[in-house]
Amino acid sequence: MIGILLIILALFMAPPMVADLAVGNPDWQVFLAAGGVTLFAGVNLLLMNRAPGFTEITGRQAFLLTTSVWVVISFFGSLPLMFSELDLDFADAYFETMSGITTTGSTVIVGLDYAPPGILLWRAILQWLGGIGIIVMGVAILPILSVGGMQLVRTESSDLSEKILPRAAQIAGAIGMIYLTMTFACAALYWFAGMPPFEAAAHSMTTIATGGFSTRDASIGGFQNASIEWIAILFMIFGSLPFVLYIQVSNGKFGPLLRDSQVRWFLSIVILATFAILVWLIAEFDAPWLEAFRHSLFNTVAVITGTGYASANFGAWGTLPVALLFFLMCVGGCTGSTTGGIKVFRFTVLHVIAKNQFARLVRPHGVFIPSYNGRPLQEAASIAVMAFLFMFGLAFSIIALALSAMGLDYLTAMSGALTALANVGPGLGPIIGPAGSFASLPDGAKWLLSAAMLLGRLELLTVLILFTPAFWRS
Amino acid sequence: MIGILLIILALFMAPPMVADLAVGNPDWQVFLAAGGVTLFAGVNLLLMNRAPGFTEITGRQAFLLTTSVWVVISFFGSLPLMFSELDLDFADAYFETMSGITTTGSTVIVGLDYAPPGILLWRAILQWLGGIGIIVMGVAILPILSVGGMQLVRTESSDLSEKILPRAAQIAGAIGMIYLTMTFACAALYWFAGMPPFEAAAHSMTTIATGGFSTRDASIGGFQNASIEWIAILFMIFGSLPFVLYIQVSNGKFGPLLRDSQVRWFLSIVILATFAILVWLIAEFDAPWLEAFRHSLFNTVAVITGTGYASANFGAWGTLPVALLFFLMCVGGCTGSTTGGIKVFRFTVLHVIAKNQFARLVRPHGVFIPSYNGRPLQEAASIAVMAFLFMFGLAFSIIALALSAMGLDYLTAMSGALTALANVGPGLGPIIGPAGSFASLPDGAKWLLSAAMLLGRLELLTVLILFTPAFWRS
Repeated sequence: MIGILLIILALFMAPPMVADLAVGNPDWQVFLAAGGVTLFAGVNLLLMNRAPGFTEITGRQAFLLTTSVWVVISFFGSLPLMFSELDLDFADAYFETMSGITTTGSTVIVGLDYAPPGILLWRAILQWLGGIGIIVMGVAILPILSVGGMQLVRTESSDLSEKILPRAAQIAGAIGMIYLTMTFACAALYWFAGMPPFEAAAHSMTTIATGGFSTRDASIGGFQNASIEWIAILFMIFGSLPFVLYIQVSNGKFGPLLRDSQVRWFLSIVILATFAILVWLIAEFDAPWLEAFRHSLFNTVAVITGTGYASANFGAWGTLPVALLFFLMCVGGCTGSTTGGIKVFRFTVLHVIAKNQFARLVRPHGVFIPSYNGRPLQEAASIAVMAFLFMFGLAFSIIALALSAMGLDYLTAMSGALTALANVGPGLGPIIGPAGSFASLPDGAKWLLSAAMLLGRLELLTVLILFTPAFWRS
Repeated sequence: MIGILLIILALFMAPPMVADLAVGNPDWQVFLAAGGVTLFAGVNLLLMNRAPGFTEITGRQAFLLTTSVWVVISFFGSLPLMFSELDLDFADAYFETMSGITTTGSTVIVGLDYAPPGILLWRAILQWLGGIGIIVMGVAILPILSVGGMQLVRTESSDLSEKILPRAAQIAGAIGMIYLTMTFACAALYWFAGMPPFEAAAHSMTTIATGGFSTRDASIGGFQNASIEWIAILFMIFGSLPFVLYIQVSNGKFGPLLRDSQVRWFLSIVILATFAILVWLIAEFDAPWLEAFRHSLFNTVAVITGTGYASANFGAWGTLPVALLFFLMCVGGCTGSTTGGIKVFRFTVLHVIAKNQFARLVRPHGVFIPSYNGRPLQEAASIAVMAFLFMFGLAFSIIALALSAMGLDYLTAMSGALTALANVGPGLGPIIGPAGSFASLPDGAKWLLSAAMLLGRLELLTVLILFTPAFWRS
């Protein structure tokens, strides 16, 4: 499995090589070499492990496989960054790759404006691959493993079969087509709106993946183009809705998408937060309302979806936007999309449970059956959702404390831990905020944040379970 | 019920009156007048509502009663502060009283060193009454109402009867004696250690109540006396253990106290956090280890128990202590004590649930029964605990956002929301940190924080339920 994915990864090193060749940058040799090494490792793994019972794996193997896929891919993906003219050390290169493949979008590279095209394209490809990877995982693998209450979002398509891998391949096919189509549509629109074709391609990949890597230090804001920002808003939202529902949309059925509880909650939160920031910007800065609306919507969407693009340095917007964006970081989008964070469906479940609790307190002997998305909510699922939240809170606390112990200030440590765990991208404050970069952090912090991104991307328990003794017992 | 409590409150206005008379401060008239008004209101309420079925009330009445008791008492308790020579406005006086009666310990008064003795004593008395009040509630009322999983800490004594009020009176008697004894012991020790008798009395009341009001601006640190700090540490810990268990200790049985899961978890967390801060202080400041140990233990205990005394300005200790103390703020002590916060037993329950989740993920078809304190943990209780945490997180987010909207900076808004909700006292940062005061905040923030203190003190749901439509439906 890892072998196959490495071969795919190697093939995707070709476009950046071509890009560097086209502008005569010697880095094309780096991509060729890295691609060769990756291909070699992939083919070797594949040949060494060919066995007949390949398509059926146990739940336990699935956990181990999932985590190791992401760790290994990040290693090979970091090779071009290490040996390119950027000359990143291992910690930096691994951080950047993990940030790419988990669609987080935090960067340690300063001076993107002068970076060679191969590297810029490679970063975009990493996010694009990570995006489709997490969609397939979220639809086909995690619900079956019942991680953190994900059984709630099992769809008909993921319920049918116990054979995880063929199922995944089939769903990946359908969703992959949609993903590809959206990417092309986004690229075309960016281009029409005035973005140079190369940057349009790179940005379309990181928009739909809600990743956030940009080809410019000033991110999307660097284009100073309102149409481009509106296109980005639209496709970031597309990237954060459940992709399985698009299959029905492509068959002309819009109902399931519009009626879905995740979609409705997500859009409601976006509207509410945008409105709050809009009012603040107008009241505090007397900003022209259309521009203020675009900026507040853009940055709300960029943060809640975990894309991490910036249209402006929202760190300078004052107290309310900073605090609000901090909380939005952990919200995330819908499951089965490319977004990170806690995910909207978990908040819906909590809301249902809390309502239920109040009803019980008023009538201690009454019988109340909570329901989610029209179906009764089982206690096991509620508890799983809440166990996830506990692990999220605990992981956040431990990471924030560890970052503080490395000397990071309060805002940097808090927002750094959250932005990594929720796969958002930039943090808050002058150091790692939208106007800064992660380059100046100590190496230990970079490794810790790389681990946090992986944790967040794989819904925590998928990774943490590997550290429990029970997992390894016979 | 409110009438009786108001009469008690009025009687407790006598000692501050005497104190002011003794030093010839004209504020004695304020206490006399306030006492008279409170007594009048109390007697009136009592006479108006005398009815035979007095000793049996429904759960719903208990919710309404609990919240209104605290709101009304805070109003009458604020009278002396409003009309004394401090001349506080209503928002300030109500904030200070609510902070007292909820044993929070945040203050708006600058210049305690020059404040009249009557006011200092009154603040201490408010916390002392609030302390015994919350113990009785936590033992006798909240567990029966099953608020936020409190049914888990029902003891034999709270299970026996459905008649809430006589039960409460009986338990209040036994615990009240212990509380009183501890207060005297603490006062005596403070006095022996060198504290002036008046200040020893005032501090003993706010130590055992884990309240944190001091007679000095520099808090306990102002005495520059290591013995006093050790005594404070000891009695803050006493104040944060379950008081019902002391009844058994007074019968010579130490077993239940030492074996109690809350006590063990609480002490373990204290030791761990103290050690982390100790190592940090020695590494960063090269501090002499015994002094560093005393400071780290003192401030860990003061924050986790929600006392809020300061032996030093821990805001200047650097990144790790600030972040660690921030997280400790929400932990709190044991239920049935005077501490605030989320409470240790809820973390234990979460830990049990998370362990259980991992076991389930490894063996999806296995049967696992989680247990708490030796007994099986029912799903309803788990869900109640987690609903509480959700409400805590939600309330924290909303309050922090509202404070940000009023222009408070990130650290002030975050720690202010948490310190009020967890009934700790000081926040973090230069404004509301241990070296600052809440005086400079806008009035709106003071009212919001007063409400947050009440919410936190009454375990959130007790108050929030009054805002649900179902509560008021026949």
